[in-house]
Amino acid sequence: MAKDHFVSQIADIETDFPQWYTDVVVKTKLVDYGPVKGTMVIRPYGYAIWENIQRELDARFQAAGVENAYFPLLIPMSFMTKEAEHVEGFAPEVAVVTHAGGAKLEEPLVVRPTSETVIGHMYGKWVESWRDLPLRMNQWCNVMRWEKTTRPFLRTSEFLWQEGHSVFAEAAEAEEETLNMLALYKEFAKTVLCMPVLTGRKTEKEKFAGAVATYGMEAMMHDGKSLQSGTTHFMGQNFAKAFGVQFTDKDGTLKYGYTMSYGVSTRLIGAIIMTHGDARGLILPPPVAPVQVVIVPIAQKKEGVLEACKALEGKLKAAGVRVRLDDSDNSPGWKFNEWEMKGVPLRIELGPRDIESGKLTLFRRDTCEKEERPLAGAEESVANLLHEISEHLYLKAEKRMRERIVPANTLEELLAGVDGNFVRAGWCGERACEDRVKEFAQATARVMDGVHDTKTCVCCGKPAKHTVFFARAY
Amino acid sequence: MAKDHFVSQIADIETDFPQWYTDVVVKTKLVDYGPVKGTMVIRPYGYAIWENIQRELDARFQAAGVENAYFPLLIPMSFMTKEAEHVEGFAPEVAVVTHAGGAKLEEPLVVRPTSETVIGHMYGKWVESWRDLPLRMNQWCNVMRWEKTTRPFLRTSEFLWQEGHSVFAEAAEAEEETLNMLALYKEFAKTVLCMPVLTGRKTEKEKFAGAVATYGMEAMMHDGKSLQSGTTHFMGQNFAKAFGVQFTDKDGTLKYGYTMSYGVSTRLIGAIIMTHGDARGLILPPPVAPVQVVIVPIAQKKEGVLEACKALEGKLKAAGVRVRLDDSDNSPGWKFNEWEMKGVPLRIELGPRDIESGKLTLFRRDTCEKEERPLAGAEESVANLLHEISEHLYLKAEKRMRERIVPANTLEELLAGVDGNFVRAGWCGERACEDRVKEFAQATARVMDGVHDTKTCVCCGKPAKHTVFFARAY
Repeated sequence: MAKDHFVSQIADIETDFPQWYTDVVVKTKLVDYGPVKGTMVIRPYGYAIWENIQRELDARFQAAGVENAYFPLLIPMSFMTKEAEHVEGFAPEVAVVTHAGGAKLEEPLVVRPTSETVIGHMYGKWVESWRDLPLRMNQWCNVMRWEKTTRPFLRTSEFLWQEGHSVFAEAAEAEEETLNMLALYKEFAKTVLCMPVLTGRKTEKEKFAGAVATYGMEAMMHDGKSLQSGTTHFMGQNFAKAFGVQFTDKDGTLKYGYTMSYGVSTRLIGAIIMTHGDARGLILPPPVAPVQVVIVPIAQKKEGVLEACKALEGKLKAAGVRVRLDDSDNSPGWKFNEWEMKGVPLRIELGPRDIESGKLTLFRRDTCEKEERPLAGAEESVANLLHEISEHLYLKAEKRMRERIVPANTLEELLAGVDGNFVRAGWCGERACEDRVKEFAQATARVMDGVHDTKTCVCCGKPAKHTVFFARAY
Repeated sequence: MAKDHFVSQIADIETDFPQWYTDVVVKTKLVDYGPVKGTMVIRPYGYAIWENIQRELDARFQAAGVENAYFPLLIPMSFMTKEAEHVEGFAPEVAVVTHAGGAKLEEPLVVRPTSETVIGHMYGKWVESWRDLPLRMNQWCNVMRWEKTTRPFLRTSEFLWQEGHSVFAEAAEAEEETLNMLALYKEFAKTVLCMPVLTGRKTEKEKFAGAVATYGMEAMMHDGKSLQSGTTHFMGQNFAKAFGVQFTDKDGTLKYGYTMSYGVSTRLIGAIIMTHGDARGLILPPPVAPVQVVIVPIAQKKEGVLEACKALEGKLKAAGVRVRLDDSDNSPGWKFNEWEMKGVPLRIELGPRDIESGKLTLFRRDTCEKEERPLAGAEESVANLLHEISEHLYLKAEKRMRERIVPANTLEELLAGVDGNFVRAGWCGERACEDRVKEFAQATARVMDGVHDTKTCVCCGKPAKHTVFFARAY
């Protein structure tokens, strides 16, 4: 009864995935809608996921020698126009401050949609000599892009992200960093989000406004659509020239630096939800789950039950597990459904009979199967199971993605295959063909595969210059 | 020579404290000026201090059961006007977004100067029953207040802060939380910033726009002026009524909640600088110093020196010390001055003779004295010294503050005493007298002392209702 009650709160994942997503993010209290159209409020359960993402990713940046800093939110409108492609890409979606302190401003100020311009300006002040290079900084902040259609985590007017910006003396160094950060993201997605991704270079059409080359990582969601989950950009000297990022080299000559940037955002929370979730709701990867283990007492009013649960909670906490004891007045069945919907990776059920026989019952959210383990040494069982769950989640998603990459030699094949799949196909490199694929199959070039083995363009039939993953995307 | 060179870069702390401050924050690369007037760029060395502050404070909030969340940056203008005093206080200094996505907005949006309104709105949606209370959330974010005169960290258009917001069923609970958070701040200031503060209630004139009562902590800077370093506010039902934060109580009746809020900001970095700094530059408290120990090799080209320094660095790092080995090509003297200006609490000098005799030389930045300790067991010596430095910094600042609190019975005495001191004096409670003190002595009521032992108002001579600390303030 209670279970039906819960499941009925969420739309069916197979037949109405968009509604399932909306139901899940709101009902598990990850997020709510802000009063201004297109904005979101990240509630504690959702924000805790973001904090775990931040901690894990930040540790990787620190290990790589990147330093955190903070640059201003407001950017002079004139900065945006200094890089021609950049303003064309971002101007249509910026929010603009025109008044402040009770007066009209002399120059309108843009709420940062990304910070290449203002960071370029500061790097221009700071960089003087080759000794100052490389300069590698990152900031965790909010950004704003005025979007027409929005969806919590996936596309909102304001979102949280990190943006890393580096400047190097040599083009090769900046290109290397662009690929290194892409590899860092991919490892992070695998290890922390348990999410497989395809990585590769973006086409000219899909690249960042102002970049020489953009690389992306794309993840396959439950419905087979693609979600761009992170990007890295090699800027060449575009921004260095626009903002005067110049240095005196060892030979005494004045040269422009080469810049690059990279970012991931709260969109990753959406990626996790749509990669791992099932009919019952969320399935959160253990490394980012705010609650990794929930303890549900059975017959909790019986003598000794709550005490045993609290002792177990203390042991797991001491072992570094994010554990919650649910000793509320709700029935065990109610609690099971609540925490299943909220995607807690592991549930421990502990009642009088378990205590008597010195065992506990473990429910794995990923397989929805129960196992029994000895109560003694529970910390070890839990650690092992959390690890197993992480691996299983990754492998399951990886298998799905592998099975759903289909080839196509013609537009018709591409259209037939693209619903629920990534289509791997040859491309001549012409924008016209890319546009035609979009028009014909509502699919876009997600990334180009590093392995190029296709012969002809899926659209025009001419020799293929690249092998591309085409997909419908969020 | 090198030393003179460095000291000459900084204005004299005794004769030109404002210029000393500007020199120090810019030359130690804590901060730089942003392109938009009144904004700052927090550079890695400054941002690392903020990250340490965040980590320490956030751990205290978590231990107190407060949950982190994130609320939108942009607030509908109409929200600001829902609480009459609030709009009066904040409207003059807000930045306003009037255009977004290429079009004029129907309603202007305010860049949050503080989030009582938008959080009140969300709490109004979320709170239904007494079971939902208390609700206690915090967010780490940027806020914007358009200020006419600005100064890095102390007063900038945009700054970073945390703002905690709670709603309770009972007034007494909200008042208790207001005082608890004040006590939490005071302990944090003492333990982490090594900074003594006076805490107490603010006068009506000085309270937060929309609060029933504001409490503050005030710290005495090097020049004897006061810096408001944190505030907590009891809102009564003002915001609950403005935003419909209502709950059904146990007895079935619908009631308004009681709210409170509290915040500290990047201003604390300015507080540290102006509390502990000296003629040579920064002195950073060990708990927040980005680099707690710098190792300077002596005769570093001699065989074995760098190896010994690296081994020591590894040992200290393993012991959890934030240590940096400066093996750059600069001379030891140059390095001494550089790291002294940057306020690193402890310097280790290690050269061939030290290695031979199995000892190391430790320079304490707080006393500017050198000590010798055995090389074996350096981790313990360092841990002890860092602890001693923290204690000494606090006691030194505490002694200064204690010695510089002077009494006054008349306006003339207040004027004579207030230059470089806090003046403790009686006050009748009338706004006219408070205004007169400001006019006569350019001093404001910082906080009211919990101990009320003064007899007459320093201004009008009528019976004193409160005992107030008056001071000139940043």
